[in-house]
Amino acid sequence: KDSYDITLLPGDGIGPEIMSATTGVLLALSKRCNFELRTTEALIGGAAIDAVGDPFPDESLRQCLSSDSVLLSCIGGYKWDANPRHLRPESGLLKMRKSMGLFANLRPARVLSQLVDASTLKREIVEGVDIMVVRELTGDVYFGTPKGIDVIDGKRVGYNNMIYGEGEIERIARVAGDVASKRSGKLCSVDKANVLDVSQLWRDVVTEIMSSEFKDVELSHMYVDNAAMQLIRYPKQFDTIVTGNIFGDILSDEASMLVGSLGMLPSASIGDGLGPGVFEPCHGSAPDIAGTDKANPLALILSAAMMLRYDLDRDAEATILERSVEAVLDMKLRTADIKQEGDGCRLVGCIEMGKAVADIV
Amino acid sequence: KDSYDITLLPGDGIGPEIMSATTGVLLALSKRCNFELRTTEALIGGAAIDAVGDPFPDESLRQCLSSDSVLLSCIGGYKWDANPRHLRPESGLLKMRKSMGLFANLRPARVLSQLVDASTLKREIVEGVDIMVVRELTGDVYFGTPKGIDVIDGKRVGYNNMIYGEGEIERIARVAGDVASKRSGKLCSVDKANVLDVSQLWRDVVTEIMSSEFKDVELSHMYVDNAAMQLIRYPKQFDTIVTGNIFGDILSDEASMLVGSLGMLPSASIGDGLGPGVFEPCHGSAPDIAGTDKANPLALILSAAMMLRYDLDRDAEATILERSVEAVLDMKLRTADIKQEGDGCRLVGCIEMGKAVADIV
Ligand SMILES: CC(C)[C@H](C(=O)O)[C@@H](O)C(=O)O
Ligand SMILES: CC(C)[C@H](C(=O)O)[C@@H](O)C(=O)O
Repeated sequence: KDSYDITLLPGDGIGPEIMSATTGVLLALSKRCNFELRTTEALIGGAAIDAVGDPFPDESLRQCLSSDSVLLSCIGGYKWDANPRHLRPESGLLKMRKSMGLFANLRPARVLSQLVDASTLKREIVEGVDIMVVRELTGDVYFGTPKGIDVIDGKRVGYNNMIYGEGEIERIARVAGDVASKRSGKLCSVDKANVLDVSQLWRDVVTEIMSSEFKDVELSHMYVDNAAMQLIRYPKQFDTIVTGNIFGDILSDEASMLVGSLGMLPSASIGDGLGPGVFEPCHGSAPDIAGTDKANPLALILSAAMMLRYDLDRDAEATILERSVEAVLDMKLRTADIKQEGDGCRLVGCIEMGKAVADIV
Repeated sequence: KDSYDITLLPGDGIGPEIMSATTGVLLALSKRCNFELRTTEALIGGAAIDAVGDPFPDESLRQCLSSDSVLLSCIGGYKWDANPRHLRPESGLLKMRKSMGLFANLRPARVLSQLVDASTLKREIVEGVDIMVVRELTGDVYFGTPKGIDVIDGKRVGYNNMIYGEGEIERIARVAGDVASKRSGKLCSVDKANVLDVSQLWRDVVTEIMSSEFKDVELSHMYVDNAAMQLIRYPKQFDTIVTGNIFGDILSDEASMLVGSLGMLPSASIGDGLGPGVFEPCHGSAPDIAGTDKANPLALILSAAMMLRYDLDRDAEATILERSVEAVLDMKLRTADIKQEGDGCRLVGCIEMGKAVADIV
């Protein structure tokens, strides 16, 4: 196959800018490597709320499902913060994940040698850190029922069910086992099994899957509170981490902050491999700098690389893209978010950064 | 009142050693300041499992409830890790918290100038950090029902209810408001209100209590994933943090790791102020160094200072104790866990460290 349908979700804030920088790069790459990308834009987040009153309209879902892969910029902004929950941009994200069956979220936290000083942690602690967090994305307390806010005897009670079925745990364990065996073979499963029944089941099922299907993967278990500490104390002890939705939400953000340059971090949300995945940066929509050409497009460009690798089976092209990003860093180009005082680098905007990558792919 | 009944819970691992160093210090302090402490030991954790088959026997509960305050070392160890959950040391801790009504856990993360280099974060990031985490301790997914592991159509399902009633949120908000107004007056409430109903109620109730009862406290809200990042990115933005049980478990451990010297951090678990509180270090029982005189007793000594302040209303004596701990650090005494290569300090054991503090209180 050498022609692909890609849905682009530019989203909110800096989303459209970094998307246009990234499509420029993809166009250059596709020319060089002789494949074709046909792109169609669709609505999500605040933009979708404003246009059609739904943060992820059915039309967008249909468009995504009919394509080979989906590239998403970022969503959200102050403008919609006071809306009721179902009319907030985040709800579009959750609806997208659930309705597209994207149960696995892969978030690499790799410290690039060019940016090691951007971290708030000491150089010797973060140099060489290369962690992949595999987060379950469609279960847990995010989607569990019963949930709600009831009034009982005149008093409000709020509740959400933290729940996992063994099938949900098995499939994310298989993704994690796969990822770990393609990396160092070391997998750390994070839970709170000393307190929670749902975590005890998590631990049991992950152990079962690894010992029956991934005999070469070296599995360890860690409590979530300890993991939050160890990520700061000695992050190099980790290779692949697998955990549930809410713990993964917290730990993957913590891990990305070790890297110090959130503007560089991509992510992949994937399902059973039959439908398309969604590829998006870890950073937010930065409404304060939207439209000023200050955004860093590299995380979305690296997300496009993950798309090439996971959805389009174009590993070589993914690698070209990743190397090109490192190359522009070596050429000492920096957007404002990764510029350090006295680093001897040149400050560039989003457009110029995108062009620089496009020029060398 | 100048005479107090204190229950000592030496617990497991290094527990007994640091407890004996601490009681030595308390004895010296009580002589100097003319008050009397009558101490009684009771069982908890692995020691209690071994002795009577219950990680927190009723006898210990009665003893604790009949005293003015409780000092706890630490619990746990490999030996009991494979036990069923109700026969694990941690279950004793949870039972103690619930049965004594200890709904508020105060965990200071203060970077001491003498130990700033022990952090894995850069000096300029952590210097001067002084955060108080107020964690709710008897609610949330820790104690929520329904919970369990069921088999449905031949498949296991694990679940725990994440639940808060408004009364539980109100009382922890009041503790946090109190703490914040005695500090800088800045309070950050952490939740996941963009996804969870229980967090939406949390946010609503905290906002109500602050705006009606703590008008001088400046309240802000932050999502838990962002908080996990911000603690690393720019910890000085925080003064007092209030959050639920599970988020507090994760974030307070993360915050303590910023400090880099877990062996220095105390905590207080308190209830409605009528019954006794429990004061304990944040560190674990370090079974690998138990009995070798290598443990650091300072976190337990600082926990005793919190006990003097919160339960015995002896603020002046608490301050003397805290200053004495800083003084031994200024005298360049260090236990192994806080000794840095080339820091010009003298390595001492648990006993000598305890004596050094006792000598100067
Ligand atoms: C925006 C929010 C609903 C979302 C989540 O909690 O999953 C975000 O934090 C993320 O990690 O993608
Ligand atoms: C041991 C465990 C049950 C406990 C908790 O999760 O509360 C511990 O991590 C703590 O923070 O005191």
